[in-house]
Amino acid sequence: MTHTPATTDGMPDDRQQDIEAEVTRQVLRSFADCTDPRLRQVLQSLVQHLHAFVRDVRLTEKEWDLGIDFLTRTGHITDDRRQEFILLSDVLGVSMQTVAVNNEAYGRATEATVFGPFFVEDSPEIEPGGDMSFGARGEPCWVEGTVTDSAGDPVPGARVEVWEADEDGFYDTQYDDDRTAARAHLFTDADGRYRFWGLTPTPYAIPHDGPVGQLLAATGRSPMRASHLHFMVSAPALRTLVTHIFVRGDELLDSDAVFGVKESLVKEFHTQGRGSPTPDGRDLTDRVWSRVRFDIVLAPDGT
Amino acid sequence: MTHTPATTDGMPDDRQQDIEAEVTRQVLRSFADCTDPRLRQVLQSLVQHLHAFVRDVRLTEKEWDLGIDFLTRTGHITDDRRQEFILLSDVLGVSMQTVAVNNEAYGRATEATVFGPFFVEDSPEIEPGGDMSFGARGEPCWVEGTVTDSAGDPVPGARVEVWEADEDGFYDTQYDDDRTAARAHLFTDADGRYRFWGLTPTPYAIPHDGPVGQLLAATGRSPMRASHLHFMVSAPALRTLVTHIFVRGDELLDSDAVFGVKESLVKEFHTQGRGSPTPDGRDLTDRVWSRVRFDIVLAPDGT
Repeated sequence: MTHTPATTDGMPDDRQQDIEAEVTRQVLRSFADCTDPRLRQVLQSLVQHLHAFVRDVRLTEKEWDLGIDFLTRTGHITDDRRQEFILLSDVLGVSMQTVAVNNEAYGRATEATVFGPFFVEDSPEIEPGGDMSFGARGEPCWVEGTVTDSAGDPVPGARVEVWEADEDGFYDTQYDDDRTAARAHLFTDADGRYRFWGLTPTPYAIPHDGPVGQLLAATGRSPMRASHLHFMVSAPALRTLVTHIFVRGDELLDSDAVFGVKESLVKEFHTQGRGSPTPDGRDLTDRVWSRVRFDIVLAPDGT
Repeated sequence: MTHTPATTDGMPDDRQQDIEAEVTRQVLRSFADCTDPRLRQVLQSLVQHLHAFVRDVRLTEKEWDLGIDFLTRTGHITDDRRQEFILLSDVLGVSMQTVAVNNEAYGRATEATVFGPFFVEDSPEIEPGGDMSFGARGEPCWVEGTVTDSAGDPVPGARVEVWEADEDGFYDTQYDDDRTAARAHLFTDADGRYRFWGLTPTPYAIPHDGPVGQLLAATGRSPMRASHLHFMVSAPALRTLVTHIFVRGDELLDSDAVFGVKESLVKEFHTQGRGSPTPDGRDLTDRVWSRVRFDIVLAPDGT
């Protein structure tokens, strides 16, 4: 009876490496009869990377238990209004890596960033210059800009979806009631221009009372997101853009919890003192407000 | 405005590769302040492998959506009695890879295999020669063997946990009521021997009415497990062994849904005709039964 020891550098010896590699080969072979070549490719790659992770860190059985428990709790806290798996993907940067892969740099096309867990279908439509806050609390912000294609031509009729948190850091989906606020869509005019009233973005913590919050706390990471306003812009024959704009000067730009910040998306939000005339004559006599410009360039579809 | 095209081999160009690599670097840096070096190591490795997977397959945003939905459904079907995440880990071979990493080959020590989702704490104790079926349906099987250490010395008082499915393919945790059946523990005698009545193992399908079953169906894989009887054997100063024994001649040995089969764990189950005398005089006059021998060698603890 001979013991095959680990090699002196802590790496498993050849016999052990063969055993571990054979497990992976068996699993890869099990997908050989998969008739969907893309599904086969995705699963075989996933298996190879997950197995390599287990081998690289020499994952203990107790750690595997913790992983199963973490995923179980993540599943149980997820419901129609809370998506903890998206949060998990976001804080591990898997979401931003997917965004990067699917939005390859194209000339001066506007950069994309994470979708996040707070988008809702069927937002209300507002007219140009309308107010998307629907009573959500916060400092009024006039947002305007153009949508053009990569040749510089305006895109009339582009659909512009916008959504954001209120000044308390909550999206409407986090409210106790079912009301819709701080989300809307509108369309660009014949010159490809859009404009609306929203709220000056403020920083907020992603939901951190669940497993993802525990992960951040255990690793010394902050749950805070840099202040931002979400956009999704779509038009025929152009690549749909999912992005945010961020606030120049925000202290959280370098430590965004989901790695969403790109320099090209950081904008000047110009604060306007009480009594400053508004672009559309809206009466904000007693309030400070702000304004920002965001010109959007869409890449061609299929790029 | 210049477009940076993908290179002709379909790989992203240098600018795009830099963008993608920078996402990963940012996430790795975010764990720099983690005060638990092991947690940091595990998460940084996980991030690197998950990001590499996304890049390697050029994961689409629709596929990412499908992944989030799959994990959500896996979480929602998991409860106190059903563990779909363990099933998922099992069918992707992540469980067996973890077993391999944690049970490095040690001389002639008995090989380990998957734990599975059906173990229950606090099983009833049976005396040597007792019946662990507790009324579960199936062909009686006399199981006996020894527990020794890697020097060949018997291990008295070793705890032997055993559990298995009934002949209909169900564990007691899958019954509609709460009764305990086909699971028990016993201890080796002064000579390191154990013996008990169980059931001749029969093949069964892992639960396949959920997301994991859909994954198997979509990839043309069978949910069937090779027939087996679970063991968990523990004793002071020795490595706890979690394993199964399989049935020589079972047609499913080469296609086990969770990759648990190892040649050294395949045993002869000797069928005994009606009227054959039983080892302990048990009256099985009208029944066919079987017997099997499984000698267990435990590695030293900490190997």
